[in-house]
Amino acid sequence: MVTFEIVNSQEKARAGILRTSHGEILTPVFAPVGTQASVKSLTPAQLEELNTQLILANTYHLSLRPGEDLIAEFGGLHKFMNWNRPILTDSGGFQIFSLASSRSISDNGVNFKSHINGSDQFLSPEKAVEIQEKLGADIIMALDECAPPYDFDYNHQAMNRTHIWAERCLKAKRQDSQIMFGIVQGGVFPDLRTKSAEYISSLDFFGNAIGGLSVGESKKEMYSSVKIVTDILPYEKPRYLMGVGTPKDIVTAVQLGVDMFDCVLPTRLARHNSAMLKYGRLNLVNASYSRDSRPIDESCLCYTCLNFSRAYLRHLINAKEMLSATLLSIHNIHTLLELVKDIRNAILKSQFDIFAEEFFSFSRKNLEL
Amino acid sequence: MVTFEIVNSQEKARAGILRTSHGEILTPVFAPVGTQASVKSLTPAQLEELNTQLILANTYHLSLRPGEDLIAEFGGLHKFMNWNRPILTDSGGFQIFSLASSRSISDNGVNFKSHINGSDQFLSPEKAVEIQEKLGADIIMALDECAPPYDFDYNHQAMNRTHIWAERCLKAKRQDSQIMFGIVQGGVFPDLRTKSAEYISSLDFFGNAIGGLSVGESKKEMYSSVKIVTDILPYEKPRYLMGVGTPKDIVTAVQLGVDMFDCVLPTRLARHNSAMLKYGRLNLVNASYSRDSRPIDESCLCYTCLNFSRAYLRHLINAKEMLSATLLSIHNIHTLLELVKDIRNAILKSQFDIFAEEFFSFSRKNLEL
Repeated sequence: MVTFEIVNSQEKARAGILRTSHGEILTPVFAPVGTQASVKSLTPAQLEELNTQLILANTYHLSLRPGEDLIAEFGGLHKFMNWNRPILTDSGGFQIFSLASSRSISDNGVNFKSHINGSDQFLSPEKAVEIQEKLGADIIMALDECAPPYDFDYNHQAMNRTHIWAERCLKAKRQDSQIMFGIVQGGVFPDLRTKSAEYISSLDFFGNAIGGLSVGESKKEMYSSVKIVTDILPYEKPRYLMGVGTPKDIVTAVQLGVDMFDCVLPTRLARHNSAMLKYGRLNLVNASYSRDSRPIDESCLCYTCLNFSRAYLRHLINAKEMLSATLLSIHNIHTLLELVKDIRNAILKSQFDIFAEEFFSFSRKNLEL
Repeated sequence: MVTFEIVNSQEKARAGILRTSHGEILTPVFAPVGTQASVKSLTPAQLEELNTQLILANTYHLSLRPGEDLIAEFGGLHKFMNWNRPILTDSGGFQIFSLASSRSISDNGVNFKSHINGSDQFLSPEKAVEIQEKLGADIIMALDECAPPYDFDYNHQAMNRTHIWAERCLKAKRQDSQIMFGIVQGGVFPDLRTKSAEYISSLDFFGNAIGGLSVGESKKEMYSSVKIVTDILPYEKPRYLMGVGTPKDIVTAVQLGVDMFDCVLPTRLARHNSAMLKYGRLNLVNASYSRDSRPIDESCLCYTCLNFSRAYLRHLINAKEMLSATLLSIHNIHTLLELVKDIRNAILKSQFDIFAEEFFSFSRKNLEL
């Protein structure tokens, strides 16, 4: 049976254990993203070596290619991609609203065209659950509608639809081995966020997610939206802030009571030659690194930092060697996984207030590295 | 001290040990190519897990970018790229004749323009040695001139120049920790190959290489050229067939007395979606693999074959995921490393005649898979 237990909490921050059939997830947790059943440029062995606890895969992409039926034939996503630890799949909603074209939406569901080949596609709450059951992730998401953050009418309508769809997703769910999260919407509007958090909280989801953030709104609006929602969500259920992934956002959201995060940032920045630090970034294309014999971060114990200089990484980037993406992805993911581990340890020792204070104090000093 | 010892031989085939300051190389050996100080898409850790004994790096590329002085500042190529096992660098000759533009060649050396930025460059025998000493590989190569295989006059002239340059390279060499190989040229012309093999054999190189093959001539011409040369080269010195890398070419060349090979084939084919088998190739783009749950090769014990299906690899290729290049490179390099290991074991047991007979018998049956 899947369970979530809060081991210790300090003010609103919590350290927990989410037990799934593919093993325990210690929270707060950060999940690297494997959109197409592959965390870009890394083998599952490298992800395990990084102590990755959870990865995210995208229902929209996998449903279009190679298709959920093919993955089901192979025994599900874990076996297909050779990842034996927990997987979370999103519902496909966010991608339909950001990638697909020719959308026509009704309470029934969404008609859209595939961004790959233009074929006609349809997704409904029931279909989103069915696809995710075939993919077989440990954690699945209810279908939601994502609206641009500043359009009140659109957000109001999308929130109401998200609520109707949430109930239909719960009714459609059949697999006890999978747990489902509902998603709170409402853009940057406090009234809508309040209403949505209350409504989603009232339903029988295993956990609750906060969607529609980190999509163009200000940091202040993002944090205040998270606060409104986490103040309402039930204490005992896990909380997941979708698509969020800078160190500062993670520390802030944990302060507000969030347990789970995912983001493409570490792998995407890696492919764009950027190394993430706890307090900033290095753009390794910069000529100042050409003879720099230091690792990205002298205090970092990742494979990349233990073995390679900034000068070598810059050479790989200049020479357009694929290895740069791999080595930077290893470092960037390690940075975020270490951060959430440190956060968890601080909460366990009831020292998260000190941790957060130090973090923001250094963060301000190190805005530009 | 660097030594080469032949442990057992059977007819012309030999199993040896080349001892270098970065460890032993058991021959016959296959060296994956790390042109720009990176074996494409693989970390050094992955190469070590494959039991890679030796890699090749390209003097021409590294001299242009990031430059031999920068690499020397970092303690040489081993430290720069974090590869602690043996490295061989070529002389740069082949690349000047295949990649650079505006070549003007004299006995003194070659003027050419960089293929990267068009800058004026000059390479002489002395300069080729100096660059390779700065790079610090265990095995370095004399500068040679490569001519198109069928032009007799050009080959005659290029061979003579290669001989003069060979002597100058030997004179220029200063580092006792490095060993140098001379290169036999002569295109597809038996008289030139004979003359060149005799001349290069007469010089005080640690080992001898056969250059200018696998560049467009027929297999028959390639094999007969190798035979002419290996019949002349001194028995006790290691022999290296440059740029050769299909399983059939390797088995044939070992029969003719060759000890060392390098080739871009396993990593290049991987980036073009092809899996190498002992007896053929699979093009994994093929739709017939879309639901194929078998590994590339059911008898293969590489990381890729132990963990991933053809269907998953095909999905990665279709989805343009970089991981496909990594997983196929692992498999392809493993295939060639296992082949040379099996060849060596057969020679050690004096059963290489049986091994080769079986290999060519299966090879004929499996031309198309």
